[in-house]
Amino acid sequence: MLVVMQSHATEAQIDVVLDAIRAMQLTPHPMPGATRTAIGITGNIGMVDSRTLEVLPGVMELIRVTKPFKLAGREMHEADTFVRLPETTIGPGTFTLIAGPCSVENETMIERTAEFLVGHGVKLMRAGAFKPRSSPYSFQGLGLEGLDILARVRRKTGIGIVTELMDTDNADAVEEAADIIQIGTRNMQNFSLLKRVGKARKPVLLKRGMSATLEEWLMAAEYVMAGGNYNVILCERGVRTFSDHSRNTLDLSVIPPAKKLSHLPIVVDPSHGTGKRDYVPPMALAALAAGADGLLLEVHPDPDKAHSDGAQSLSFAGFEALLESLKRLAGPLERRIN
Amino acid sequence: MLVVMQSHATEAQIDVVLDAIRAMQLTPHPMPGATRTAIGITGNIGMVDSRTLEVLPGVMELIRVTKPFKLAGREMHEADTFVRLPETTIGPGTFTLIAGPCSVENETMIERTAEFLVGHGVKLMRAGAFKPRSSPYSFQGLGLEGLDILARVRRKTGIGIVTELMDTDNADAVEEAADIIQIGTRNMQNFSLLKRVGKARKPVLLKRGMSATLEEWLMAAEYVMAGGNYNVILCERGVRTFSDHSRNTLDLSVIPPAKKLSHLPIVVDPSHGTGKRDYVPPMALAALAAGADGLLLEVHPDPDKAHSDGAQSLSFAGFEALLESLKRLAGPLERRIN
Amino acid sequence: MLVVMQSHATEAQIDVVLDAIRAMQLTPHPMPGATRTAIGITGNIGMVDSRTLEVLPGVMELIRVTKPFKLAGREMHEADTFVRLPETTIGPGTFTLIAGPCSVENETMIERTAEFLVGHGVKLMRAGAFKPRSSPYSFQGLGLEGLDILARVRRKTGIGIVTELMDTDNADAVEEAADIIQIGTRNMQNFSLLKRVGKARKPVLLKRGMSATLEEWLMAAEYVMAGGNYNVILCERGVRTFSDHSRNTLDLSVIPPAKKLSHLPIVVDPSHGTGKRDYVPPMALAALAAGADGLLLEVHPDPDKAHSDGAQSLSFAGFEALLESLKRLAGPLERRIN
Amino acid sequence: MLVVMQSHATEAQIDVVLDAIRAMQLTPHPMPGATRTAIGITGNIGMVDSRTLEVLPGVMELIRVTKPFKLAGREMHEADTFVRLPETTIGPGTFTLIAGPCSVENETMIERTAEFLVGHGVKLMRAGAFKPRSSPYSFQGLGLEGLDILARVRRKTGIGIVTELMDTDNADAVEEAADIIQIGTRNMQNFSLLKRVGKARKPVLLKRGMSATLEEWLMAAEYVMAGGNYNVILCERGVRTFSDHSRNTLDLSVIPPAKKLSHLPIVVDPSHGTGKRDYVPPMALAALAAGADGLLLEVHPDPDKAHSDGAQSLSFAGFEALLESLKRLAGPLERRIN
Repeated sequence: MLVVMQSHATEAQIDVVLDAIRAMQLTPHPMPGATRTAIGITGNIGMVDSRTLEVLPGVMELIRVTKPFKLAGREMHEADTFVRLPETTIGPGTFTLIAGPCSVENETMIERTAEFLVGHGVKLMRAGAFKPRSSPYSFQGLGLEGLDILARVRRKTGIGIVTELMDTDNADAVEEAADIIQIGTRNMQNFSLLKRVGKARKPVLLKRGMSATLEEWLMAAEYVMAGGNYNVILCERGVRTFSDHSRNTLDLSVIPPAKKLSHLPIVVDPSHGTGKRDYVPPMALAALAAGADGLLLEVHPDPDKAHSDGAQSLSFAGFEALLESLKRLAGPLERRIN
Repeated sequence: MLVVMQSHATEAQIDVVLDAIRAMQLTPHPMPGATRTAIGITGNIGMVDSRTLEVLPGVMELIRVTKPFKLAGREMHEADTFVRLPETTIGPGTFTLIAGPCSVENETMIERTAEFLVGHGVKLMRAGAFKPRSSPYSFQGLGLEGLDILARVRRKTGIGIVTELMDTDNADAVEEAADIIQIGTRNMQNFSLLKRVGKARKPVLLKRGMSATLEEWLMAAEYVMAGGNYNVILCERGVRTFSDHSRNTLDLSVIPPAKKLSHLPIVVDPSHGTGKRDYVPPMALAALAAGADGLLLEVHPDPDKAHSDGAQSLSFAGFEALLESLKRLAGPLERRIN
Repeated sequence: MLVVMQSHATEAQIDVVLDAIRAMQLTPHPMPGATRTAIGITGNIGMVDSRTLEVLPGVMELIRVTKPFKLAGREMHEADTFVRLPETTIGPGTFTLIAGPCSVENETMIERTAEFLVGHGVKLMRAGAFKPRSSPYSFQGLGLEGLDILARVRRKTGIGIVTELMDTDNADAVEEAADIIQIGTRNMQNFSLLKRVGKARKPVLLKRGMSATLEEWLMAAEYVMAGGNYNVILCERGVRTFSDHSRNTLDLSVIPPAKKLSHLPIVVDPSHGTGKRDYVPPMALAALAAGADGLLLEVHPDPDKAHSDGAQSLSFAGFEALLESLKRLAGPLERRIN
Repeated sequence: MLVVMQSHATEAQIDVVLDAIRAMQLTPHPMPGATRTAIGITGNIGMVDSRTLEVLPGVMELIRVTKPFKLAGREMHEADTFVRLPETTIGPGTFTLIAGPCSVENETMIERTAEFLVGHGVKLMRAGAFKPRSSPYSFQGLGLEGLDILARVRRKTGIGIVTELMDTDNADAVEEAADIIQIGTRNMQNFSLLKRVGKARKPVLLKRGMSATLEEWLMAAEYVMAGGNYNVILCERGVRTFSDHSRNTLDLSVIPPAKKLSHLPIVVDPSHGTGKRDYVPPMALAALAAGADGLLLEVHPDPDKAHSDGAQSLSFAGFEALLESLKRLAGPLERRIN
């Protein structure tokens, strides 16, 4: 933490700030400069609300120095995290495909999709039983019935299930059915939900909030990890900017900084990120090249008849073509598609 | 809905689109133009996922025309909504102050604040028992104990209570204690929570999401109203932009369009919107001038010792000065402070 | 400047950073903390490109402390700047209206507008002879002929002229014709143009860039002032965000921080800021209440026939109604409309 | 163009709109729907300012349908554009590297860099003689002397030169020295400059504005092309968003839509896009995978001593490592590095 004084701050004002810092059980380090004094602070800053220093007379600015996350950060935990599942392992060196329809529409289409994916070596299927929809009048998912379908198809085909949890009420049921519990964009800072999945025995796929900074995203991961669940997978799915050339702005540039600051694996969702199936393959390849650990992809047996998000879903043929391209690229990048 | 064809789309491609529209039980209106054909669509469009038209060959773009909200929009409900409470009424013509500390810290400070506010004619007090904090290590609020304190102070002083609900688990308790249930920014699209408060017997103050468009915000209100609770108050509290001159970018410019599109009252929170107490009074006055129906203000008996958000809280003296200014401005604007 | 070391940085890495700082003729102040070392830097930091410190081994982050502007900032120049013109003075205590059509269309409409404005006590008229248009096929302004019209109407009516300069080629002509030289949004960081108007004998109205931070905006003012022209008026005209409820997002929240950091006057352009004439009056009143020093307003004798931006122009009747409202508000705010 | 009427618009209001459309020499196509009437418009819409329709009574919204660009768009010019230079050709199938220091610092370092690049098969060198700097106190480039250095090194080594033009005053000199004229981010909508390079005999590399939509970017290209210069290369260099994990937000997601809407080649600048040399290689590889036609890269013989942007410059060794990775990836993507 650094307190920057105004250039015309008086000695008395500086003394008040020094005293306030000491009253917080912290150590001030005054640095008189040519035009102004800055005051470094050391000690356990996380425990106090230091913003109050900002409004003391003569203070120009307060600059936070230490990152607020401990468990999610690489500083305290340098080695990469590998999320180990019965079906596969997610983390550096591999590139994990999680594919499937936006929502569980009926058992037949889920089974067909699972069999198709298993036939292509895909270990994890995504499909939503609970669907967050911006309109209350849109299809909201099959709910518990959808979870039952997923459970049956899982038993039949052996594919792992990634499915979204929207509220604490359905937490037990989703935890039971899922191999990975998905937390959606709009719930990235639903702290009650984060606390609940912090107690879950299943890994959590945490989508980045629509306008979340990397730090806020890692703090959301910290909420889950602080509850004891260290198996968190970050998922970039496009952010909200001024840009209107695609549904969201898929931010692949977050991958290198995320890898630098955190040891958690990160996957990319180019389907929601672009909103248009034509744009999915180039962004999927770019995600692999940029260093992501996998993809979340919408694939549907008949995209033009999908209950939701058909426009951004790949057909089976589209998925096969993309898979070929990914495999060609994986070798030179020293990665293994799984 | 309007389908815009590419300039070199063939007749056959246009026919495929016309058939697809008819298959959705909608009526196509082709309009051949100089460079391209556009196809208007009429009928009950809300029931189908028309984005699939976008990926048909020859289609350039799909343009949605009708607004998706019905209950929250002014088109179906032209008259302004007035939210009637035991203590006061919120809506055009008046300007309602909702003031108080960020969080319930203890009974003494809540009581002192309530008495101060009542003494100045303020009818509603804000204070959080449940606090959404971006760090799991920050003070999370007193929880149910905080609600008890609010209930006791409400009985003693007669002040109405505005307090946040963060999850469905605590919905009954908050609904019991509050005169207005607050839904926070980070939960604006927590659809399970919106459905729950749609069943509540208390009005809902719905904060705008950090990067929510006006349409998304009104769709969140629509979720609440679709459940049967028509008493929704919108609250602008700053959005997330590139700007870094204040904590958030307080978007007063949303007030006139919100008033145009919706009949719901709208209040402004300049405390969170700016994050700095010096900036609160000018933004509060500007909100009144821009046509808002009230303010949500952080006031604390001793802001520099607040458990949270002290830097943006007004002291009692600061609040009194602002109240004077608001009163001077209210007359010429034909509004009554309450 | 503050260098934050990684928590596991070695002593040797810290020494390399200390040496690098000394090699820049600056003084390092190491502050060993519980988890990491931070190094404060004092000295004339503005002269060196300190970003290279950021890539030294063991460095986590580089944090700039001092603001880069000197002339535009309030720290070196505490008193408010008043821009004195033959016709009026712009600065705190007054509220200056600058009104007129988007572009000079012909002499008749300019003369009619000038007479209308003079009749209502307005001292400054805006009108563009050179128009920056996003399409090369749109009306680009009358150019030098437009300047001649403005000069004639200025002589006839005595109204001061505010008009845009788009390039150095026309700088002499615009400087001659204008009382205030306007620099448009898209040219806020056209540094060649800023240097040119830094040599002009006329005040400069500097519009904020579409995505300029307050600091970048003040640095653009610094460019002008560094050339010797201290008469700079800031103009907020809406920024680019994700919001789509109006043409731009008019950022009134920048006014208090701009007033805090800088001594320069600031005016607001609600016409471009909102893009819709219905939204102009509430935003104009809010600008006054928020502490702006004036307005830039589009007014047109027949807005629905305007060559450009008619949708956001007030009619004469619309302007008169707004003027009445502004006058009613100015008294309680201790401001004088001029 | 589509005019959407309010649901309660009267027949008389609709008639007024129909007449207004006909008065613009356009053809209205009314489409009465269940809740409202929409009116399609065909004809030469580009010639009229149709925004005035938006403010007629009963009109809810005006929706533009046709894209405003003609020359830059793929609709009128389906085949990809290849920009042919003496040294190489830029366009699909190849992947062109344009590398070099941020600014021309002296002849030695330019010559060293050119020889290094030529030795690795690179055909084009970037280096700025005129530097747009956000502070007037920063190094502003060597100016004409810098151009002379570039010209001499070009003759000696045969490398092509890409260098920035900041104003019309220096247009002749830059046009003479450069193989490609660079237009910087801050000048993307400097229309006077765009018109000038529209007359130039050299190709133009047009950087995307800091908050430019794809449409605005293509309209800027349209300005250049409308002047007769069809050799425009788009350059994505990061946009301004709320994100703070890197200097800008490098928007690779714009590549597929740019390729879809336009026939112009597009290159990516990961150096400015990320601002940090560690992040450059993954983003460079991702740009190749996403379908870009080349890169603009900062390379410096001694990055830590660079006059500007050293933190984002690759060393020679860093460049060689990246080149190896790019070559390994180019094959599977059916591209040839040049």
